[in-house]
Amino acid sequence: MQPIDTLIHARWIIPVEPDHRVLEHHALAIDKGRIVAIIDSREATARYRANETINLSEHALIPGLVNAHTHAAMSLFRGLADDLPLMDWLNHHIWPAEGKWVSPEFVRDGTELAMAEMLKSGTTCFNDMYFFPDATARAAQAAGMRACVGLILIDFPSAWAATPQEYLHKGLQLHDDLKHDGLVTTAFAPHAPYTVADAGLEKVRMYADELDIPVHMHVHETAHEVEQAQTASGKRPLERLSGLGLMSPRLLAVHMTQLIDGEFAALAQANVNVVHCPESNLKLGSGVCPVPKLLAAGVNVALGTDGAASNNDLDMLGELRTAALLAKGASLDPTAVPAHTALRLATLHGAKALGRDAEFGSLIPGKAADVTAIDLSDLSTQPVYDPISQIVYSATREQVTDVWVAGKRLLADRQLTTLDENAIRRKAQEWRDKIFAANHG
Amino acid sequence: MQPIDTLIHARWIIPVEPDHRVLEHHALAIDKGRIVAIIDSREATARYRANETINLSEHALIPGLVNAHTHAAMSLFRGLADDLPLMDWLNHHIWPAEGKWVSPEFVRDGTELAMAEMLKSGTTCFNDMYFFPDATARAAQAAGMRACVGLILIDFPSAWAATPQEYLHKGLQLHDDLKHDGLVTTAFAPHAPYTVADAGLEKVRMYADELDIPVHMHVHETAHEVEQAQTASGKRPLERLSGLGLMSPRLLAVHMTQLIDGEFAALAQANVNVVHCPESNLKLGSGVCPVPKLLAAGVNVALGTDGAASNNDLDMLGELRTAALLAKGASLDPTAVPAHTALRLATLHGAKALGRDAEFGSLIPGKAADVTAIDLSDLSTQPVYDPISQIVYSATREQVTDVWVAGKRLLADRQLTTLDENAIRRKAQEWRDKIFAANHG
Repeated sequence: MQPIDTLIHARWIIPVEPDHRVLEHHALAIDKGRIVAIIDSREATARYRANETINLSEHALIPGLVNAHTHAAMSLFRGLADDLPLMDWLNHHIWPAEGKWVSPEFVRDGTELAMAEMLKSGTTCFNDMYFFPDATARAAQAAGMRACVGLILIDFPSAWAATPQEYLHKGLQLHDDLKHDGLVTTAFAPHAPYTVADAGLEKVRMYADELDIPVHMHVHETAHEVEQAQTASGKRPLERLSGLGLMSPRLLAVHMTQLIDGEFAALAQANVNVVHCPESNLKLGSGVCPVPKLLAAGVNVALGTDGAASNNDLDMLGELRTAALLAKGASLDPTAVPAHTALRLATLHGAKALGRDAEFGSLIPGKAADVTAIDLSDLSTQPVYDPISQIVYSATREQVTDVWVAGKRLLADRQLTTLDENAIRRKAQEWRDKIFAANHG
Repeated sequence: MQPIDTLIHARWIIPVEPDHRVLEHHALAIDKGRIVAIIDSREATARYRANETINLSEHALIPGLVNAHTHAAMSLFRGLADDLPLMDWLNHHIWPAEGKWVSPEFVRDGTELAMAEMLKSGTTCFNDMYFFPDATARAAQAAGMRACVGLILIDFPSAWAATPQEYLHKGLQLHDDLKHDGLVTTAFAPHAPYTVADAGLEKVRMYADELDIPVHMHVHETAHEVEQAQTASGKRPLERLSGLGLMSPRLLAVHMTQLIDGEFAALAQANVNVVHCPESNLKLGSGVCPVPKLLAAGVNVALGTDGAASNNDLDMLGELRTAALLAKGASLDPTAVPAHTALRLATLHGAKALGRDAEFGSLIPGKAADVTAIDLSDLSTQPVYDPISQIVYSATREQVTDVWVAGKRLLADRQLTTLDENAIRRKAQEWRDKIFAANHG
């Protein structure tokens, strides 16, 4: 008998790699944070002596969900201002609120709220962009959650940094602090083409190459953004990024609702990653990212929720369903983004976008044990003809029961093991009371 | 002290009528199945002596959700066949499965599964269209759920009826059986313009007028349907229905993804009700119902999930969120269908479409006590700036804790009181095993 840390028996295991496979009555063996094997349950029982054995008889195991675009701390602004035109929302609600409230404590408390929500809904890794990324990183480390924190750069002063130089300096410092951390990594996060000048973007490209980390950026979110750039410079933002050498496998281009014919091939050729945020794009009326055409062109498309102020949740199960439905609706093709593709976008494609698909994103031996269990016995997912279909089209976040990150069980039978749910709720309500009183005072 | 049956204290009460109102720390008093008052909690405690007092300190009360278009029994086909072109899906999967399996027992078991799912997700009333509507009606009566069962008419033989005459005859018989039932009512349900000839539709109009009941019909679901009608007859289906006298306040025209300019005013003038099924329309790639334009024209728009074979759930909270998001995304206007409008479509507009808005659909004294409680203490809906926003954009079905229909508590702290969840699950799995074996045998 081979000693291992954990053996999880499950009704179904959906490894995502290879495509379409559903294993029934199999077990997933974990040792030292990594997947050792996925084999028939009876065989596993005969082969392994596990410190902990978990029986999930009505559950499907999937790779942990990868949320490829968040502003985690903004969960404290969830529902603060909805149903408004984008510029009214930003100028009169979100930016003033950020100017007034964002601090290391705000980012810590908001990130904890966000991580609790994400873990409870099956997300094991988030790719973040926000002020005080050091506070985000510390919160993720304390919770044991996988994260890529954005070294934010924006040509406006904030409580985090006053000048582009200071943003970059603090970002490089944080990268240095985290360079030996296996769970919490970094990406450069220049906010958007319209908020960062060429000089800053050139430095980002240079440092990203040198440090070998991704570049996470909002690109072509709205038609307005593209039109303004064309009026001002005669160039579409993607053209400008190309000229700056930023069109590369490092780039996570978020939103991308505005694309014209030649751009699909250019993105594919440069191996740029696109992060699709369907619910935020719908809610803000930004447009629709043409996912089926991007996938057909060979572009890696990942999924993100965006921040909770424009979604208004961080629920990747809901997001992958919306991605599957919206792709069909927008293309008038019911075969677009089928269920297994949607699941792949929300897992393996996210890991690939972060340059980490050798480490996580699917359930194969050798990868980190980032695993999510979903209970399909709920009446809303009964009966089960195809568990992938039930997960994508019928399941909700509350059916997530267990989550492991690098083999550590962060959600056990719906209970968080490293975060204090009551304390997080209490702090969220304290922030809400302060913010609400200031707005209505 | 006035004796009453039930007093519910809630953190928030959202009556839907009048618009936008949110009452804090109020109580809803129920007696003999009807709402007696909604008043300040302290005042209510002083005024009423209730048989049962319920404290929902973190919850919002909303009117019970009205699902204005279902094929409830098809929940047994949930996930049987997804991601297929519409005609492949119908011709090679759904219709053969229906031909082989639909029976009174199938409809009873499927309707029970559907009702359990609907009650647990806050729906108190469903407007159904399926074979063996007598079985649907009996199941709803036994569960105590409000339903409008469709007296189906289709020019094809089925296990329920062989000829249009027999469909109508059996429908009229069922209407007669139910005429004294306050909870389970009837509507004529001619399937669609392309499946029912003029002769049948003329009889439907005549009988609907005579019996004073609604007409529930799929109309303009796809561009293909409209084109085929134009090729065959030179008329768009709506024109034909107008010529047959069916454009009236009785009509619930379901789907309506294909509308041209003059039709908005015609629908408004005739007071036709439109039932929007956004998730089904997206999933089948049918098109998008232009809800903002219909509302601007003054048309009553209700919401439905459609059957679980094309959605794949019966979750009206999910559906109203999709309706709100899709309206903004399709019109590129983030102010389209704001949260309170989405909630209104899913409640009062559904009741109005069924001609029952004097009886239910909002929380006002005198109306039936059809009430849904949603717990907003979940981290995914924290913090709360605006409970309507949290319900529409962030809450999921599992946050529904309690449901009353005509004052009877059918869901109590997430437990069904009139349906046996384990028996329903067991039967669903038995049907699944038979159907799966036959398909793969």
